[in-house]
Amino acid sequence: MFSEQIDQSILKEIYDKAISVSDFGKVATYIPELSLMSPNLFSLSCVIAGSGEIIQTGDADTYFTMQSISKILSLSYAIEKFGMDKVFKSVDMEPTADSFNSLMRLEMASPIPANPFMNAGAIVICSILQKELGRESFNEITNFCELFTGTKPKLNQKVFNSEMSTADRNKSLAYFLNSTPGLLMDSVENSLDLYIKLCSLECTTLDLAKIADVLSCGGKSSFTGKYPLSFETVKTIMGIMITCGLYNGSGECAVRVGIPAKSGVSGGILAVAPGKMGIGVFSPPLDSKGNSLAGLYALEMLSDKLNLRGVKILD
Amino acid sequence: MFSEQIDQSILKEIYDKAISVSDFGKVATYIPELSLMSPNLFSLSCVIAGSGEIIQTGDADTYFTMQSISKILSLSYAIEKFGMDKVFKSVDMEPTADSFNSLMRLEMASPIPANPFMNAGAIVICSILQKELGRESFNEITNFCELFTGTKPKLNQKVFNSEMSTADRNKSLAYFLNSTPGLLMDSVENSLDLYIKLCSLECTTLDLAKIADVLSCGGKSSFTGKYPLSFETVKTIMGIMITCGLYNGSGECAVRVGIPAKSGVSGGILAVAPGKMGIGVFSPPLDSKGNSLAGLYALEMLSDKLNLRGVKILD
Amino acid sequence: MFSEQIDQSILKEIYDKAISVSDFGKVATYIPELSLMSPNLFSLSCVIAGSGEIIQTGDADTYFTMQSISKILSLSYAIEKFGMDKVFKSVDMEPTADSFNSLMRLEMASPIPANPFMNAGAIVICSILQKELGRESFNEITNFCELFTGTKPKLNQKVFNSEMSTADRNKSLAYFLNSTPGLLMDSVENSLDLYIKLCSLECTTLDLAKIADVLSCGGKSSFTGKYPLSFETVKTIMGIMITCGLYNGSGECAVRVGIPAKSGVSGGILAVAPGKMGIGVFSPPLDSKGNSLAGLYALEMLSDKLNLRGVKILD
Amino acid sequence: MFSEQIDQSILKEIYDKAISVSDFGKVATYIPELSLMSPNLFSLSCVIAGSGEIIQTGDADTYFTMQSISKILSLSYAIEKFGMDKVFKSVDMEPTADSFNSLMRLEMASPIPANPFMNAGAIVICSILQKELGRESFNEITNFCELFTGTKPKLNQKVFNSEMSTADRNKSLAYFLNSTPGLLMDSVENSLDLYIKLCSLECTTLDLAKIADVLSCGGKSSFTGKYPLSFETVKTIMGIMITCGLYNGSGECAVRVGIPAKSGVSGGILAVAPGKMGIGVFSPPLDSKGNSLAGLYALEMLSDKLNLRGVKILD
Repeated sequence: MFSEQIDQSILKEIYDKAISVSDFGKVATYIPELSLMSPNLFSLSCVIAGSGEIIQTGDADTYFTMQSISKILSLSYAIEKFGMDKVFKSVDMEPTADSFNSLMRLEMASPIPANPFMNAGAIVICSILQKELGRESFNEITNFCELFTGTKPKLNQKVFNSEMSTADRNKSLAYFLNSTPGLLMDSVENSLDLYIKLCSLECTTLDLAKIADVLSCGGKSSFTGKYPLSFETVKTIMGIMITCGLYNGSGECAVRVGIPAKSGVSGGILAVAPGKMGIGVFSPPLDSKGNSLAGLYALEMLSDKLNLRGVKILD
Repeated sequence: MFSEQIDQSILKEIYDKAISVSDFGKVATYIPELSLMSPNLFSLSCVIAGSGEIIQTGDADTYFTMQSISKILSLSYAIEKFGMDKVFKSVDMEPTADSFNSLMRLEMASPIPANPFMNAGAIVICSILQKELGRESFNEITNFCELFTGTKPKLNQKVFNSEMSTADRNKSLAYFLNSTPGLLMDSVENSLDLYIKLCSLECTTLDLAKIADVLSCGGKSSFTGKYPLSFETVKTIMGIMITCGLYNGSGECAVRVGIPAKSGVSGGILAVAPGKMGIGVFSPPLDSKGNSLAGLYALEMLSDKLNLRGVKILD
Repeated sequence: MFSEQIDQSILKEIYDKAISVSDFGKVATYIPELSLMSPNLFSLSCVIAGSGEIIQTGDADTYFTMQSISKILSLSYAIEKFGMDKVFKSVDMEPTADSFNSLMRLEMASPIPANPFMNAGAIVICSILQKELGRESFNEITNFCELFTGTKPKLNQKVFNSEMSTADRNKSLAYFLNSTPGLLMDSVENSLDLYIKLCSLECTTLDLAKIADVLSCGGKSSFTGKYPLSFETVKTIMGIMITCGLYNGSGECAVRVGIPAKSGVSGGILAVAPGKMGIGVFSPPLDSKGNSLAGLYALEMLSDKLNLRGVKILD
Repeated sequence: MFSEQIDQSILKEIYDKAISVSDFGKVATYIPELSLMSPNLFSLSCVIAGSGEIIQTGDADTYFTMQSISKILSLSYAIEKFGMDKVFKSVDMEPTADSFNSLMRLEMASPIPANPFMNAGAIVICSILQKELGRESFNEITNFCELFTGTKPKLNQKVFNSEMSTADRNKSLAYFLNSTPGLLMDSVENSLDLYIKLCSLECTTLDLAKIADVLSCGGKSSFTGKYPLSFETVKTIMGIMITCGLYNGSGECAVRVGIPAKSGVSGGILAVAPGKMGIGVFSPPLDSKGNSLAGLYALEMLSDKLNLRGVKILD
């Protein structure tokens, strides 16, 4: 059985190797509050598919903000409640080689954001949620998160304030989107407010692993017994994760790790080994594309050691 | 066991449904010789990982040209023989939202092609092969192919001539690349000659399935017993396939099919279900992005019916 | 003498021909208040260099808003008061083939706006004025305008409100600029407030001709006797007008009219025949690039009839 | 009278100042043969409009290749013989902020080159000439040049060979253009052959001044008495010169010099002071945009000293 292959000694080895590379990364500074995180933090949590067994190492109690990982929640919720057609009328599902906050393709190629994991696309998704849910939108998404993790995530008000005060590029994106009639479903202010609130939700790596567990199990949580996602949503989320989950580092991640993943600039990465396990990893120092350096390395080692790609090894 | 799930009745059902959508596509016309293919052809071949069992349906004897699917061979060979460092010094591994023959990012963003599956990147790869192998390059790649399939593929001279006579965009790409010192390792003429020759190699869907089988099995062929690829190469090829394999339709394919795939404008698609099977599918009519319409639909149905993504289905 | 060549009969002929083409244009609709202007309005005013003689035809009493023509005032003022170095540290002086509200080059090529007559560049200029002049900025520019025209221009509050409520693209530009540290000298809100206020200043074609007269005379007003501009500023403004004055229609205007000009989306165009005369023309219907269709045609006829390019006609 | 203002002492002063800045430029190296030119060469020739009086200084006997200045000849000829409609169906007349050999807008914005002075546009013009004139094309253009200068220009075979062997970017442009059906009127090879031959035509600064004289005089040569150009062609050429003549330095030139000009990478610049004089200047060291550094400075001084912009100086 798969869970027999993974134990503390494997995680310990990964921890030791991963932490050593974190020195080469840089903690995000463009959001002042994020720059305060210790570069030495590291945490890795795994949830075995079906059994829900938890194996973890490092600073597993540390809370950090989800940042872009929350885009999984907002997109999932939007598809579940409002359907694929409504969602993908206003956003495409193709990766680009542009940075996460890139705007130029909106003018150059198509006013429709390329995918829901770039900031532009996620803001469009938030505008749909705002339009449909109004003032309840944030509360609804946190309730939705509880279906995965069993607990309601909290807003980190300091991070929220910090991001709000340095959100020029996101504001630029939102106003640009709003200049195309019918694209942004609610006001720039409301859409950005929800977008940044979701980025500022707190979580642990275990929370991430629990969310990933639902994807790994085709829609049902091994923990809560709830079915937060339909199989169609699972397929959509995983497909967009593997192609767009690490922004313009998605290709490299698909090569090195080979399973769907989604990163955030606080240093977290959520990864899904379908049918095997859900994974959360956290280490603040980032590479040049905004992805956790040690987190990515840890996932690579885990993937190789446990054959998470699932290839058949012939003798 | 996995092979028990798949039988002729499943393939027959897929055949019937897939062929019905091919009417909505258009056979490639930009290469005159390709436009002569019958839009009614359809073929689907599967090779079970490890056992090498073959299950197929439709016009399985039909030969067609590999076109961009041959980029798997050239890239694999280059990595195997010359190493990751040499290859990825001259080409990146990130998907873009641009069409397969796009040039603008080379001027706008980086002279290094974004990935080896866009024409620009594949031409760079061919220049490395030409530089290292000289006049033996084409013969070497066909010998390499034989390690996967057991037979040496043949050049379709008519298609080669046809492509050579309408290769303006590829020539433009090659000369642009050549204007960056040190990027193209051999002459424009030699690099393009090999590039177009590899595109003009003939294959059946079973050949594609056999190549995919090697990836599915981590590097060893279930047929020939040879080890054409190291595990590192397998990981690299599969990672680039899932993010870049269907050009600017790669995201949609990752969502709908969810496994690594690579398409060609003749209507073929090669797909890999790691640990489960290698797949080749063929239907000439293409969608707007240059991917086989019925082929993509067939893969989607196959993936869903056989749970090729490998998620754990909980009751 | 030059003024002898121009008389009412010439203007009348131009009026008749120009008004007939205005049917092919469309009054600006993206600012709701502008869409209310009658498409049949037409006015043409000329001021003879030195003598200050006025010759005009059409609806010369009609007030309209300056829109982008006000960029001449803000740029002139900024150069006069703060110097070329300060101004052109934050904005370049090169034409682009992009539309007036284009943003993509800021991400693609350089964070510095290409020229001060694109919206992005003009917003940067307004940020400098706001930083240096604070709450007096708007009043200062209207006083500055009085040096040219003899009267203080008034704000059209309705147009201002209308533009403020539909300023998504300008807000997007301003926030994008603000994401580059040190580029926008004052807040987005203050910079845009001044920018849109200046666009909403009212004028007649005679006012435009009087401003153009100052450029035509190398810096001194034939009317007020004041010297609003140094010769260096005159050279700078005229150079940017001829290359960038009609946005991505500047090349066509340089061919057809051949003298420095600056258009606004309300339908006004200011043109300078150096040493000969200052010109203001107004007709609301626009061509596809946002320039007054009949206005451009009137300038073309005037330039040809009076040899405004100043070539030497040999027999 | 205008010619009284200019004399040897003015030219001498300009020579002394201009030569001193040439140290800050770099002689073109991308065409090997051009890199052999002495950086200390400087020549300035003026032809007074109408009288044809010649005033010049420096190395006036030095021959250099026209490079991009020849685009004036090819464009003029094409308009004269085949008409505005035929020419501007395949090329636009708008400046861009892109470098002279830029390609990206052809894919990003429009397959039609932005203007005839970028390499892409000039190649299109040469394809029209080739299509219409066949093997006589080169001879025809040199005959045409003789109408301006009185002598037939010669091909510099060494420069031609040198450019042909390093023409990757131009080949890339030509093949890209050829991938749009109907855009390139003759083969890539023929079009490029003519294009590079015209670039390799030899001239002196007096030759350039004589060509400029024809523009300055509205179409008639003060020397040969011939009428090489119609007034419509003169207007078109001057309009495109002032907006596009110095590539992505055209805006700066319009500000500093203020009259139509066209540069070449060998270090020559042709400038037109309409009704006043034709100018040729030459100094090999270039600025970062490919324009003669000392040449541009000389034109700036000349323009200021002689009020070539023609503004009315009021006391």
